[in-house]
Amino acid sequence: MASEKVLSHLEAHKQQHVQQLQDFLRIPSISSQSDHDADTRRAAAFVADELKELGLAVDVIDLGGHPLIYAETEIRPDRKTLLFYGHYDVQPVDPLELWDNPPFEPVIKEGVIYARGSSDDKGQVYTHIKALEAYIRTGEELPVNVKFIIEGEEECGGHSIYQYTEENPDKLACDAVIISDTTLYNEETPGICYSLKGLAFMEITVKGPAMDLHSGSYGGTVQNPGNALSEIIAKLKDEDGRCLVPGFYDDVLELDQDERDGFAALGYTDEILCRETGAPAPFGEKGFTTLERMWARPTCDVNGITCGYGGEGAKTIIPAQGLAKVSMRLVPNQNPAAIATAFSAYVKRIAPAGVEVEVTNHHNAAPVLVPRDSAMIQAGMAALEEGFGAKPVFIREGGSIPIVGTFQDCLGAPVLLLGYGLNTDNIHSPNEKFDLKNFWSGIRTSAVLMSKAAETA
Amino acid sequence: MASEKVLSHLEAHKQQHVQQLQDFLRIPSISSQSDHDADTRRAAAFVADELKELGLAVDVIDLGGHPLIYAETEIRPDRKTLLFYGHYDVQPVDPLELWDNPPFEPVIKEGVIYARGSSDDKGQVYTHIKALEAYIRTGEELPVNVKFIIEGEEECGGHSIYQYTEENPDKLACDAVIISDTTLYNEETPGICYSLKGLAFMEITVKGPAMDLHSGSYGGTVQNPGNALSEIIAKLKDEDGRCLVPGFYDDVLELDQDERDGFAALGYTDEILCRETGAPAPFGEKGFTTLERMWARPTCDVNGITCGYGGEGAKTIIPAQGLAKVSMRLVPNQNPAAIATAFSAYVKRIAPAGVEVEVTNHHNAAPVLVPRDSAMIQAGMAALEEGFGAKPVFIREGGSIPIVGTFQDCLGAPVLLLGYGLNTDNIHSPNEKFDLKNFWSGIRTSAVLMSKAAETA
Repeated sequence: MASEKVLSHLEAHKQQHVQQLQDFLRIPSISSQSDHDADTRRAAAFVADELKELGLAVDVIDLGGHPLIYAETEIRPDRKTLLFYGHYDVQPVDPLELWDNPPFEPVIKEGVIYARGSSDDKGQVYTHIKALEAYIRTGEELPVNVKFIIEGEEECGGHSIYQYTEENPDKLACDAVIISDTTLYNEETPGICYSLKGLAFMEITVKGPAMDLHSGSYGGTVQNPGNALSEIIAKLKDEDGRCLVPGFYDDVLELDQDERDGFAALGYTDEILCRETGAPAPFGEKGFTTLERMWARPTCDVNGITCGYGGEGAKTIIPAQGLAKVSMRLVPNQNPAAIATAFSAYVKRIAPAGVEVEVTNHHNAAPVLVPRDSAMIQAGMAALEEGFGAKPVFIREGGSIPIVGTFQDCLGAPVLLLGYGLNTDNIHSPNEKFDLKNFWSGIRTSAVLMSKAAETA
Repeated sequence: MASEKVLSHLEAHKQQHVQQLQDFLRIPSISSQSDHDADTRRAAAFVADELKELGLAVDVIDLGGHPLIYAETEIRPDRKTLLFYGHYDVQPVDPLELWDNPPFEPVIKEGVIYARGSSDDKGQVYTHIKALEAYIRTGEELPVNVKFIIEGEEECGGHSIYQYTEENPDKLACDAVIISDTTLYNEETPGICYSLKGLAFMEITVKGPAMDLHSGSYGGTVQNPGNALSEIIAKLKDEDGRCLVPGFYDDVLELDQDERDGFAALGYTDEILCRETGAPAPFGEKGFTTLERMWARPTCDVNGITCGYGGEGAKTIIPAQGLAKVSMRLVPNQNPAAIATAFSAYVKRIAPAGVEVEVTNHHNAAPVLVPRDSAMIQAGMAALEEGFGAKPVFIREGGSIPIVGTFQDCLGAPVLLLGYGLNTDNIHSPNEKFDLKNFWSGIRTSAVLMSKAAETA
C-alpha cells in the first residue's frame, strides 16, 4: 500500500486538488470545433506544464491534429512501468440552454462538480497526475516508473494516438496501461472492466430503379428496394435475436462459471433494464441472462434505415434505393475483419432478386479481454478496494474503446480500465458532473496502484 | 360523327385555339402556394368567362378552398348529358433552373408547346371548351347537354370537388363523365383507360426504447425497432412479391382472356420496362405478364422507411423507433377499407416480441372498372379513332384517381378517361409540354364524342 505520508498528503490537499481541477475545467477544449483550437492547445499546455512542474520529461507531439502529451519520470530498469492514458479534450456543449450553469464555469453543489469534461475525462485523468504529485511532493520514493500519454482528439476521432502508438511501441513500453475514462459499477461499487466488445460497422445499399417510381404506374413490375432491404435485415437474426451470419458464433469465447456467478451476484434485473431504457420488455438470445447478453454476447443491430419518403403524409413511390447501417458488437475471440467478410458474403447470398446489393465495411475494432488473474488486474482490484473503501467487482462493457485494442496489440501489456465516473454523469450531455468523492477516491486508488503494481511478480 | 361545319371550324381555328391556350397557360395558378392565390382565382375566372361567353349558365362555387366552376348548357330532357371534369390549377415549378424557358411564358417549338399546365391539365381540359365552342359558333345544333365541373385544387389535395359531388349528385347528373387528364397509350395510339387501381395507404410505427440507445451499452438486451420493422415488412410479401396479408386476393377480379390478349397485343416488353425505370430486372408475381401485373394485379410497396441514423458515417445506436409508409394499390373488386383492416390485423399478429406496433390507415381510394362494352365507352373509342385518325386501344392504369371513384359512386355514370397527353410530357417536372397535334386531335375527339354520345341507346 501507499505510504502514510502519501495518503496524508492527499488528505491534506483535497481542496487544493479541486481548485486545480477547476482551472483545468475552465479551458473550453472542444476538439471537434476549430474555433476552439486555441483553447484545446491551452488545455494541452496545462497538462504539459503540470507534468514538467513535477520534474517529468515532457514531449509535445504534433502529428497534424491536436497535440499528444508524452511524459515520463526517470525510467529505472529495476521498477515496473505504468503508462497512464487519458484525454484533455472535451465534447461540444450544445444544447447550451439545457445547462444549469455555464459548462466552462465549474460549480460545486453538494459534493459534486458540474462542468463539461469533469467526468469525461479531465477529472479522471487528473487523478493520476495528483497521485504522482503526492509521491514527488512528499519525497517518497516512487515505486514504479510512470509514463503519461494524454491526447486531445478522443472526442473528435483523431488519428494521432493510433499513429504514435503504432510507431513508438518502445517509447510507450510498459507493464500495464491504466485508463480512467469509464465508470464505477454503481455508486457504491468500484470495478475493473476486463473486457470490451469489438465492432464491425457495416453499410448495406440496395439499388433498384434509377429514380423513385410512381407506386401506381410501376407497382408490381420491379423489385422495391425498401422491401428488399427489409428482407435482408430480417434474415440477419432469428426471432430470438440470434445472428444468422454463418460462422458468427464460431470464435465466441463462452463465459466461464465464475464469470456467470459474478454477473449474477451484481443483481442487475430486467426491471432495471426497462427503467434505464424505457423499452417495453427485455429481448434477446435464449440461454443467457440480460447482463450476459449485454456484456458477453455478440450483437447485430440496425443503427438506421434510410429509404424513400419519410415526410408528413403520403408520397406513394417505389424508392430508388434503400440504405441500412448495421453495427455488430463482437466479443473475444471474434475477428472483426473475418466477421465483416462473412456478413458481406451472407448479405450478397440472401439478396432478393431484382435489385443490386452493395455491402461496405466502414470500420472495425477488436474486442478486448484482460485475464482476470493477471497480477496487474489483481493489483488494480486491491488499489480500488483501498482507494474507495469498498469491495470492487469485475465488470465488462458492451461498448468499444478502439485505443484499448491498439495498446494491447502494440504494447503487449494488459490494459486496466479503472473507471471513476458514474453512469449518471451526463457525459456528452448537458450538466456533465463528477462526484468529488470519486475524484478523491480515484486519486487515492492511483497512488495505491503505483505501490501495488511495484509488488507484482 | 360531328358535322362538316364543326370540323371545318376546328380546322380553321387551330392557331387561334393555340393562342387562347397560351393566354390560359400564362396564368401561374399554382394552387398549393398561397402567394399564387390571386393567380389561381384568375385562372378560375378565365374558365368561367369563356364558358359564359359561350352562353352557358356558370356558377362559381366557393367551398373554402379554390373555387369550383360549374357550367351547363340548356338541359333538354331529350338529350344525353355529358359532364366534363378537369382542373385549372397547376403543379409548382421548382426546380426553376431546370426549365429551358420560363414555365409561365409558353413557347412553341416544333409543334410542341412548353409551359407548366400545358398537359396537366389546362391543355387537356381546354379541348372540351373549344369543342363545345365549335358547335355554338357554327350554329350547329348541340347533340347533347353539356355540363362542366372544373376545379382548382387537384394539385393541392383539396376537398371541394368531393364535397360538391357528394352533396349535389342531381346537379351533376349525367350519362357519362369525361375526363381528359391522362395520356394516350403511346405517341401513335390513343386509348381509353377503363380501369384504375385503388389505394390503401398505411403507416406502421414500431416503438422500442424511450430514446436512442448506445448499441454497445444495450445491444443484445432489448428488441431493436429497426430490425423488428424489417421483419414485419419482410413478411408482407413472399419472395415473388405476392402479398401475404390474409384474404388479400379474395376479391380480385381476374382478367378475362380478351383483356389478356389485348394487353399482349400492345407489345409492352421487359426491355421497355427496364429502359423506362432503370431497374436492373423485372420482378413480380408468377403467372402474369409485366403489363398484367402493372395494370391488373394488386401491389404492396414500401414507400419509405425512417429509422435511426441516416447521416454520414457511423452512429452506433439502437433506434427508439422505426416508421414505414406502405401503399397497397388495389384492383376491382377489392375493398380498400377491408384490405386496410386485414393489413392492420396481420401486422399486429406478426409483430416481433419486445416492441409496440401501431398501424394507421391514412387514406383509401376505391378501384375503378368501367365495362368495356358499355355504349358510352364504345362512343369514346369511336370518337378517339376519328379524332386521332388511329385505332384506339383499351388500357388500364396502375395509379389511382380518387375523384373517379367518387363520380362513379355519386353519379352512377360511367367515367371515360380520354387522355390526350403523353408519358413524356414532364407533368410535375420541369419543361412540361403538350403536343399541339394531340391538342387539336383532342378537340376533334371531344367534338365527335358529343355527336357519338347522342347516338348511344
